[in-house]
Amino acid sequence: MSILETINSSADIKKLNKSDLPLLCEELRRFEIESVAQTGGHLASNLGTVELTVAIHRVYDTQKDRLIFDVGHQCYTHKIITGRRSGFHTLRQAGGISGFPKPNEAVDDAFIAGHASASVSTAVGMAKARTLQHEDYDVVALIGDGALTGGLSYEGLCNAAASGEPLVIILNDNTMSISKNVGGTAQLLQAMRIKPGYLNFKKWFRSASRHTRGIYDFVHESKEKLKSWLLPSNMFSDMGLYYLGPVDGHDVEQLENAIRLARDLRQPVLLHVLTRKGKGCPYAEAHPDKYHGVGPFDPATGELAPVGVGFSDRVGEFLCQYAEQDRRIVAITAAMAGGTGTECFEAKFPDRFFDVGIAEGHAVTAAAAMAKQGLIPVFAVYSSFLQRSFDMLIHDVSLQKLHVVLCVDRAGLVGSDGETHQGLFDISYLGTIPGMTVMCPASFAELHEMLGAALHDIAGPVAVRYPRGGEGRYTDCSVSAETVLRKGSDISIVCCGTMINEALAAADKLAVQGISAEIIKLGIVFPNRYEQCLASAKKTGRLLIAEEVCAAGCIGSRILSACMESSIHPKAAVLLNLGDGIVAHGTVDELRHNNGIDADGIVRTAKAMCGCGAEEA
Amino acid sequence: MSILETINSSADIKKLNKSDLPLLCEELRRFEIESVAQTGGHLASNLGTVELTVAIHRVYDTQKDRLIFDVGHQCYTHKIITGRRSGFHTLRQAGGISGFPKPNEAVDDAFIAGHASASVSTAVGMAKARTLQHEDYDVVALIGDGALTGGLSYEGLCNAAASGEPLVIILNDNTMSISKNVGGTAQLLQAMRIKPGYLNFKKWFRSASRHTRGIYDFVHESKEKLKSWLLPSNMFSDMGLYYLGPVDGHDVEQLENAIRLARDLRQPVLLHVLTRKGKGCPYAEAHPDKYHGVGPFDPATGELAPVGVGFSDRVGEFLCQYAEQDRRIVAITAAMAGGTGTECFEAKFPDRFFDVGIAEGHAVTAAAAMAKQGLIPVFAVYSSFLQRSFDMLIHDVSLQKLHVVLCVDRAGLVGSDGETHQGLFDISYLGTIPGMTVMCPASFAELHEMLGAALHDIAGPVAVRYPRGGEGRYTDCSVSAETVLRKGSDISIVCCGTMINEALAAADKLAVQGISAEIIKLGIVFPNRYEQCLASAKKTGRLLIAEEVCAAGCIGSRILSACMESSIHPKAAVLLNLGDGIVAHGTVDELRHNNGIDADGIVRTAKAMCGCGAEEA
Repeated sequence: MSILETINSSADIKKLNKSDLPLLCEELRRFEIESVAQTGGHLASNLGTVELTVAIHRVYDTQKDRLIFDVGHQCYTHKIITGRRSGFHTLRQAGGISGFPKPNEAVDDAFIAGHASASVSTAVGMAKARTLQHEDYDVVALIGDGALTGGLSYEGLCNAAASGEPLVIILNDNTMSISKNVGGTAQLLQAMRIKPGYLNFKKWFRSASRHTRGIYDFVHESKEKLKSWLLPSNMFSDMGLYYLGPVDGHDVEQLENAIRLARDLRQPVLLHVLTRKGKGCPYAEAHPDKYHGVGPFDPATGELAPVGVGFSDRVGEFLCQYAEQDRRIVAITAAMAGGTGTECFEAKFPDRFFDVGIAEGHAVTAAAAMAKQGLIPVFAVYSSFLQRSFDMLIHDVSLQKLHVVLCVDRAGLVGSDGETHQGLFDISYLGTIPGMTVMCPASFAELHEMLGAALHDIAGPVAVRYPRGGEGRYTDCSVSAETVLRKGSDISIVCCGTMINEALAAADKLAVQGISAEIIKLGIVFPNRYEQCLASAKKTGRLLIAEEVCAAGCIGSRILSACMESSIHPKAAVLLNLGDGIVAHGTVDELRHNNGIDADGIVRTAKAMCGCGAEEA
Repeated sequence: MSILETINSSADIKKLNKSDLPLLCEELRRFEIESVAQTGGHLASNLGTVELTVAIHRVYDTQKDRLIFDVGHQCYTHKIITGRRSGFHTLRQAGGISGFPKPNEAVDDAFIAGHASASVSTAVGMAKARTLQHEDYDVVALIGDGALTGGLSYEGLCNAAASGEPLVIILNDNTMSISKNVGGTAQLLQAMRIKPGYLNFKKWFRSASRHTRGIYDFVHESKEKLKSWLLPSNMFSDMGLYYLGPVDGHDVEQLENAIRLARDLRQPVLLHVLTRKGKGCPYAEAHPDKYHGVGPFDPATGELAPVGVGFSDRVGEFLCQYAEQDRRIVAITAAMAGGTGTECFEAKFPDRFFDVGIAEGHAVTAAAAMAKQGLIPVFAVYSSFLQRSFDMLIHDVSLQKLHVVLCVDRAGLVGSDGETHQGLFDISYLGTIPGMTVMCPASFAELHEMLGAALHDIAGPVAVRYPRGGEGRYTDCSVSAETVLRKGSDISIVCCGTMINEALAAADKLAVQGISAEIIKLGIVFPNRYEQCLASAKKTGRLLIAEEVCAAGCIGSRILSACMESSIHPKAAVLLNLGDGIVAHGTVDELRHNNGIDADGIVRTAKAMCGCGAEEA
């Protein structure tokens, strides 16, 4: 029996001899590689934090103490340790274990995590609550250097320092976020890493004084050594945090000692740990960004299962084409060059490409400023992460009617990343931004044309939103606001984006059953007077609008409102959508089906509307 | 003729002799005090930056160079200098000069400003655009130490450093934001202020070595002195910015020299300037928070015109009452204890009150964590500033259904602060947050009851939203989702919050003209099935919904959508609201009137709906 098989809780980890820990870490690594090779998931970041997570569990009891992850995809070791090893083969699958911390799954998961940079703020809030209520648990946040590029983490650090609360912030510094880390934070950490530390100073001083050297060299080196000797003098200590480190993040014993020391200082402490992403797995160590988030792969060689071309790839390609013709076009990413398909833009136009770190707010404000000064900035970003920029879109972009182009990726259901990553709110919040044009390409051809229109034909802020994955049966191109794709007489079905594939499939099935559906595709969803939708609803008398978004602020409610304001009164009107917008993980097809917005769901609803009962579609 | 009367541009400032500058600054101060005493506006921050603004105009040409304000209410000296002196008596009045930078007003206003912490990101974007387009203007941002507590400023600083762009960030450090500054940033700046600086080190060393002292003292002091000698070692320089300062912000000559030096370094520079809020005006210097933003006052004594009791005052009072009974209740502000009326909570429960700095994102995430651990956190915040927390509301609060209470102040039209501060989007964005309850008290009595319900009766996230100012003729109390305040037969008029006063006035006027209006007040706007609205619409056949919000995602569109889904088809349905949500400054009454949502507008629309033509109401 392996050591791992004896581990079902923090408590079990504490029972082990120190000498067993390296072997446990080895077993955890093997287990994670084998398991993620089957299910897909986040690999490199989890391999990098095995020793760190084990050391945390040596010191803290996550049944009682609150361990707060940041971003959270590095929680696999934690989940395996805390009783979820046997179910780990269901990772990221419908009904299975979430790929992110989830309090509903286990009390060991202290708080939700999915968006970056929130852990320190969470830790501050929990530590305050603990102290005010005279309770005695410990609070520890685990934040990566990537997440440290987000402004929320800085707000958290400022408040952590000011709080005076006993709490430990472990900085997991792997010199990367998802791709290579950038900006001032990276430089700051780089400086800290090379500092030799207090203990080395005396050793150096003894040896240096034994040698003869030029007075200049001596003085210069003295200054540098003194500078580190005189630490604390980095951002963290200047703020009022007790800075410890850096510590080797793959030496589990040293880690355990450092974490224990940090905990026992009973004040806000930042413990700086150096780890290597992908540690112990040659292909993941060599290509940590490639093995950040993966589908299934061959655990021996790392060979990944092939993936089809998606909207993200096309966006990168098309942006390069347009940028070739127009020197004003620049591209911005928030640490997501790979995910958003803009790596090719970076390669081709390095001077016109800006990776701002996990700083979506800055990305939008800086884009607004670029637009004000005559550039055409394109910010490629996931729908869910763009939520961070809501205020900047209103205040910095919209009030000045600036021409900023948003490529809103992962719009709609994203599948296995689950509720923290679903892109179900953008129609609502982008629709609120004054003067914002929102376009929903349903095919690569439409993506190409809409992107061109967004760059060159439309004034003010523009968003082109497209889903994870690729196109379906609909590969035509119609950029207009509304297109009647199929004429019909019994019911009007309205969709946008790749949902049109579900609508067309539904229309086929309905036709077989004698129901004639008129299919209307929305290309530009805002601004849009929905005149063809209204005319069609008036004609057929039944209006069904199916969307892969939350209900609040959906396009359907706007269309129904427009009907009412125009005194058009179809006898039946139904909105299909994803309700409150909280949808757990699963494949996109499963999630569409389970929520009744796939072809079957549309057929079922359409039949009921046409008075054909609700028998199986 | 005064010097000030000769100044109409940056160029005029440059023509003056250095010896004239202190007198000009005096004249500017007098002018600002006299003028703001008449119009109201932001006083203390403008008095603190007179010399700094003059010095900036000595070095830069704001017709060409881009001067970017942060928050922006300290732009008065700049406006007066750049040709807007003669119109300055129209400040913040409808059709007059805006109290914030506004590019539409003058090319000297480089960018909009109103929300905090955006200036550095803006400067980075502009500097990049300048360099990519081979243009030759300079870029300078002016940011206060208060705005530096916001995470966006940190994202901007990181990216400014990484950019390598020639740009100057002037840190206007007055040790306050609006009230006393807090948190890690404050501590960091405090440390920097007391550092004696490089030049002082040698002087100290010479004098110290002349005296005899205990070896311990000597070594300790040596360390401290060396630490400052070895500067740069503050956050800014660690990030890669060139740090200059601190400089006396009221010595215009020293400022001019420092700014010129900063500009000529041709790299990202942070120039640290120390100013005093309210400088030169005894009452404003003594009480800078009281004289931050003011109505009209007596310029000689500073005596302020009396203001009535508003919703903000009541919120503070009621919160204290509830907190007296329930130790779990804690209050959070983002540097707005005065504005949100929570100063009394701070005074009464200092341990349970948290001023997090201008960090709305952190406030919400920390509140979520507090709620998770059993507290009842209340975040009191302006509607417009809460836009910064949109993502945190979804991700950290809503996905875990946490009981965080939002007191959303300045909801609806705010009046003289204009478009950057109007609270017209919250109904839309709060309505998008899964599981969010939104309540709109129309009277102080309702505020009291709704706050109690929010704290103790409702699960999950709750927002109580209320306007700037106080209650009107409606002083009753009805906490229910829908209340029929007046029965009628010709038309149904639906409102929420203090808009009910307009609706009741309209109903009176309509009654005189023989039109019987049914008035429905919404108390809890989400969740709400609007059953009485639907029933009323069915009965009267006409539905008018008047709201002080933007059109997208308004309550009215939800009600019309619900009508349609329930096959209720009133023959006329009209939504009155504030369209795209961009509304410039003016009094609230003027803005309601001009946008047709006051009693007169409701009467006019109702009459047209009832077929009485559109003659004068």
